[in-house]
Amino acid sequence: MGSLFGDNLKISLFGESHGEAIGLVIDSLPSGLKINEEEIKLELAKRKPYGSISTTRIEEDKVEFLSGIFNGYTTGAPLAFIIKNKNVDSSKYVKGVVRPSHADLTANIKFNGYEDYRGGGHFSGRITAPLMVLGAICRDLLKMKGVEVATHIKELGECVDDAFDNSKINEQIRCLNHKQFPVINEDVSLKMIDTIDKVHREGDSIGGMLETIVIGMKPGIGEPFFNSIESRLSSLLFSIGGVKGVLFGDGIEFIKKTGSFLNDELQYVDGEINYLSNHNGGINGGISNGQPIIINTIVKPTPSISKMQHSINILERNNLDLRIEGRHDPCIVHRVRAVVDALVCYGLVDLIMANQARKW
Amino acid sequence: MGSLFGDNLKISLFGESHGEAIGLVIDSLPSGLKINEEEIKLELAKRKPYGSISTTRIEEDKVEFLSGIFNGYTTGAPLAFIIKNKNVDSSKYVKGVVRPSHADLTANIKFNGYEDYRGGGHFSGRITAPLMVLGAICRDLLKMKGVEVATHIKELGECVDDAFDNSKINEQIRCLNHKQFPVINEDVSLKMIDTIDKVHREGDSIGGMLETIVIGMKPGIGEPFFNSIESRLSSLLFSIGGVKGVLFGDGIEFIKKTGSFLNDELQYVDGEINYLSNHNGGINGGISNGQPIIINTIVKPTPSISKMQHSINILERNNLDLRIEGRHDPCIVHRVRAVVDALVCYGLVDLIMANQARKW
Amino acid sequence: MGSLFGDNLKISLFGESHGEAIGLVIDSLPSGLKINEEEIKLELAKRKPYGSISTTRIEEDKVEFLSGIFNGYTTGAPLAFIIKNKNVDSSKYVKGVVRPSHADLTANIKFNGYEDYRGGGHFSGRITAPLMVLGAICRDLLKMKGVEVATHIKELGECVDDAFDNSKINEQIRCLNHKQFPVINEDVSLKMIDTIDKVHREGDSIGGMLETIVIGMKPGIGEPFFNSIESRLSSLLFSIGGVKGVLFGDGIEFIKKTGSFLNDELQYVDGEINYLSNHNGGINGGISNGQPIIINTIVKPTPSISKMQHSINILERNNLDLRIEGRHDPCIVHRVRAVVDALVCYGLVDLIMANQARKW
Amino acid sequence: MGSLFGDNLKISLFGESHGEAIGLVIDSLPSGLKINEEEIKLELAKRKPYGSISTTRIEEDKVEFLSGIFNGYTTGAPLAFIIKNKNVDSSKYVKGVVRPSHADLTANIKFNGYEDYRGGGHFSGRITAPLMVLGAICRDLLKMKGVEVATHIKELGECVDDAFDNSKINEQIRCLNHKQFPVINEDVSLKMIDTIDKVHREGDSIGGMLETIVIGMKPGIGEPFFNSIESRLSSLLFSIGGVKGVLFGDGIEFIKKTGSFLNDELQYVDGEINYLSNHNGGINGGISNGQPIIINTIVKPTPSISKMQHSINILERNNLDLRIEGRHDPCIVHRVRAVVDALVCYGLVDLIMANQARKW
Repeated sequence: MGSLFGDNLKISLFGESHGEAIGLVIDSLPSGLKINEEEIKLELAKRKPYGSISTTRIEEDKVEFLSGIFNGYTTGAPLAFIIKNKNVDSSKYVKGVVRPSHADLTANIKFNGYEDYRGGGHFSGRITAPLMVLGAICRDLLKMKGVEVATHIKELGECVDDAFDNSKINEQIRCLNHKQFPVINEDVSLKMIDTIDKVHREGDSIGGMLETIVIGMKPGIGEPFFNSIESRLSSLLFSIGGVKGVLFGDGIEFIKKTGSFLNDELQYVDGEINYLSNHNGGINGGISNGQPIIINTIVKPTPSISKMQHSINILERNNLDLRIEGRHDPCIVHRVRAVVDALVCYGLVDLIMANQARKW
Repeated sequence: MGSLFGDNLKISLFGESHGEAIGLVIDSLPSGLKINEEEIKLELAKRKPYGSISTTRIEEDKVEFLSGIFNGYTTGAPLAFIIKNKNVDSSKYVKGVVRPSHADLTANIKFNGYEDYRGGGHFSGRITAPLMVLGAICRDLLKMKGVEVATHIKELGECVDDAFDNSKINEQIRCLNHKQFPVINEDVSLKMIDTIDKVHREGDSIGGMLETIVIGMKPGIGEPFFNSIESRLSSLLFSIGGVKGVLFGDGIEFIKKTGSFLNDELQYVDGEINYLSNHNGGINGGISNGQPIIINTIVKPTPSISKMQHSINILERNNLDLRIEGRHDPCIVHRVRAVVDALVCYGLVDLIMANQARKW
Repeated sequence: MGSLFGDNLKISLFGESHGEAIGLVIDSLPSGLKINEEEIKLELAKRKPYGSISTTRIEEDKVEFLSGIFNGYTTGAPLAFIIKNKNVDSSKYVKGVVRPSHADLTANIKFNGYEDYRGGGHFSGRITAPLMVLGAICRDLLKMKGVEVATHIKELGECVDDAFDNSKINEQIRCLNHKQFPVINEDVSLKMIDTIDKVHREGDSIGGMLETIVIGMKPGIGEPFFNSIESRLSSLLFSIGGVKGVLFGDGIEFIKKTGSFLNDELQYVDGEINYLSNHNGGINGGISNGQPIIINTIVKPTPSISKMQHSINILERNNLDLRIEGRHDPCIVHRVRAVVDALVCYGLVDLIMANQARKW
Repeated sequence: MGSLFGDNLKISLFGESHGEAIGLVIDSLPSGLKINEEEIKLELAKRKPYGSISTTRIEEDKVEFLSGIFNGYTTGAPLAFIIKNKNVDSSKYVKGVVRPSHADLTANIKFNGYEDYRGGGHFSGRITAPLMVLGAICRDLLKMKGVEVATHIKELGECVDDAFDNSKINEQIRCLNHKQFPVINEDVSLKMIDTIDKVHREGDSIGGMLETIVIGMKPGIGEPFFNSIESRLSSLLFSIGGVKGVLFGDGIEFIKKTGSFLNDELQYVDGEINYLSNHNGGINGGISNGQPIIINTIVKPTPSISKMQHSINILERNNLDLRIEGRHDPCIVHRVRAVVDALVCYGLVDLIMANQARKW
């Protein structure tokens, strides 16, 4: 079913939007990690609805740990936790009505009509909440190795954020990681929110592109072929509903520019290897080269819009005109940011573990 | 190491560019499949260098089957084969010299200097040749279920190919699958080749974007989350050296257009579900919806260029100016097309098997 | 960590003896299965303490389903459930005191002292309770395909039960599956209970050998080599604490008897293949041959005994004499029976799914 | 299909008895290991037929490395090698004739008649030859960590070898590892060979029990549940054709003796933990405790006997009387020893890697 991932730090994800609880099991965590519940709350908060530009379904997202923690530290045994669904309103979901570009119809076909259709069931974005706890733990693990991860909204509609600036990257990362709406340039931030408000008023929705940066990653992590950093991270990122593209380094620039521009030349400076550029986003041959890892994630507009749409009812087998009501986000780009961060942290920890396994 | 893949149809890939042989083991093929050696040769031919715009290293790529075939049919036991490296010229590869944006340095760091550096070793594009045999077999398996796959060069430099046309899609697919340089519009094809010739003369290289279409896929294939069609296919596609982006459906359009435009509305027409558009590329919630699956793959310019570049020698620990000689492609987009087709076919077969496993 | 298993029907197990809850996630169940809560209770009951010969820790073992079920049927999404630990008494467990032949010391070393030591933590037999739910579901899946599974206590101390009798095997299986203390011959059953009572009064414990039979398994299930029926089932059975041996067919007889005796000859009778014996326990080359599958599982005496033992305190780093108090079973063979049944059912379902995956 | 194994050191096995070649791919070996071709030959030799008590099919077993080695050291890339089948005589194998208790019939059913039936095809013991190369490499890896592995024939028919003796265990291990017919007591060895000769003359075959010892394993290796040392090793050992039982520590003694006898008490002696016995075979809770690991493997008599047997021809669908001719072993216990050693070494290396992965 695809709810498991990981070669060394293995996870098992479960839950439905309107079910009893959502949750996660994490297998093979090192023992003796301090679980910082405050950090976990902060990570969960980043994924939460934000002001007027998000759904009004507010979930408390209280994490209940079931196993794997003893006296505040990981035991080494599987860490399991749940988040109960509390603020559930299933009244808007009618069985058989297909919301265009949601998973309603594909889930119905795949599961022969037995799927939990309420709120998208297992296909709801809500299922990503447990990944925030995983992300918080993995962020901690990375920090112990000097690695920091941050994501900003690079593009949203016509708005384009400033680029990362190497000369103040640590500050930018710290700053982004404290923002609910992660944009480097505050003016651009306001324009983006205006854009979202505007499409919201029109009953429409909008997407965008996230850019993630990872600094401090030592070279040599990642594997050739199917476990390249790109393969593993894209595999994780495409698991997020709404992600339609994953690009590394200069991304679409690779289509038009030539090799002589895009190659990252290098030189020794004072005995240290020094790259003259980072078009390839910190990865060569699937393996980290020590420069910042750059990932671009394209997030589509949420398909839940209140504009009238043509659709069908598969139980009654008839056509209908649909105006999606209920509590929905006009834009999820900023919320997806939190999940992207979490999954990038997790994917890198898993690859570091693979690298450690074979050191003899 | 990342040389294995597959949940049901499992593969194990091996080899180095200048080693004895490259090869593949395929585990869990159905028994009783006829192995069509002519089709395999045709698939291998698509990956081969093409005319003046490719390397002059010409490998015969003779496939030697070692196991899993008896009297021309698969036995059900692991199918293993090798392709011997014959036209090997290691004289141009000097240990310690780092070719910018190749895996030379990352491999050296990862493997503590024990890597086979000749021709990129295990990181060479040559290692993708065995995947063509896998692709030919999986293409056959898909055909038995009415599924066809084809890829064209959508963009290369400033040249843009025509889009797929639903009204003549079968013909377009058949046509593309017989081309060595797969472009729908022949005029554009000539312009692309001109572009490649031009960068070649300048000692430079160029990339592009491939677009793959899959038709005939029945709905319900693919899994939520980590085994979504997008997750599995991107995981495979990013294993190809030079791939820097994977996008589904309308790709970068998802950044700017709104949900009301991008949602794919649907209606019953004569009792059959009929989609009014296909912006989402045939996938909802990670699962096929019955429409054509659309995948865009961004391929970077080959880093092997004969222009002068700054680089280093890690054995002598000094700087140097490097002009890469030897036999190289100024553009690999058309060759990568063959590998993309092969991996898409393989990834879909593996997902179909997962779906079959649980039918009770 | 080893808490995950399954190639197609994947499971993720978690929990500690004295933690909040134990539980399981089951991924890739077919959708549309009716969840029979009564059958699940019956399976859980078989694992429960029995009369005077078991621990007095009585757990209600109430199963709380969290996801994957909707209106009483499986949805196809991951099925997760928990069983809360209620009757917990940690007062007898002192940190640092090593109970001989328990996992106390190995867990302490492995997890650097961070393990939850109370009641054996993640190493407690309690963690097998969730497997009973899995077993009940898989038993149902097997029944749909005409497969039945049952286990009896073949040997316990000097007591030896009757063998399975092909002429009344269906009745024997039905009968065993309703017994809490599963012995074919009731006289032997009484002797076994006497034996257990006797060692109990002596503050000692005793083990035994279980014999499992699987009937109705069609031929062709199981894979060569690492996924042979024997490999998969032994892998599961050895995950149960206290299992020290797994044997198939005639087991230890294979040491002394010759091939001419042990080979299972066969003949066509009325056009059907008819085996003249079943020394090999229904498996050839790792694959079912259509005859009953026979598995023998050796269960050691529980290491928790109230006799005085030499041991150590690893916190205080001193020697001590230990008399284990608290609530313990003098014999767990009959309780392990339930877990063996569950895991055999599960292992076979997973192998059937693998077989189905590749049917084209 | 089950030809892959390993969580970290992953292997992929292929080949048929009378096919072109058999071979193995090993993924994730540490780079920089010296490949000792002499040691590999010695390991392969241990698996070879021995004197008059074995088949007269003598294979040279020349290992041809294809990838993963450069200048005599592992590169870190997948190591692949083949062994060509040379001394092949398929004349004795008639399609459709079922040899009792071989995999002929189950393979035929599983693969719908497409299996390579010659010499047992993929089910032949010959396929274990590549595992000897794996074993040699893993034995080297274990030696670097102070671990030694050896196996003797503990029982064969009525003959019983001496037990391991802790006071001279290093000498016993060294001695056994140089023997083709591994028995501690030379007098017993002669009796065993007499026994084999006798059954051979009668056209019959005989099995036995191997005992493996692992010394020097530090405590804390192995995982709870499904990746317990017992689970992983049994999974590997049951992949060997002819293995019908795997037991740890005192094995069948666990049925009759009581806990007070079987518990391994412990005490500090001069600050070091000292076990007073080793009935549990060096494993508690699936994890090594630092004492010798003891494994017993029951090997059945080879089903290839020249005595007359009842069987069938599944192509002609008739009964027949069968006297198996061709080149066969009357006993394979001593040859299986070599494979057991190899797989035990491999399984432990894989578990050590899992343990290393999560050290942070």
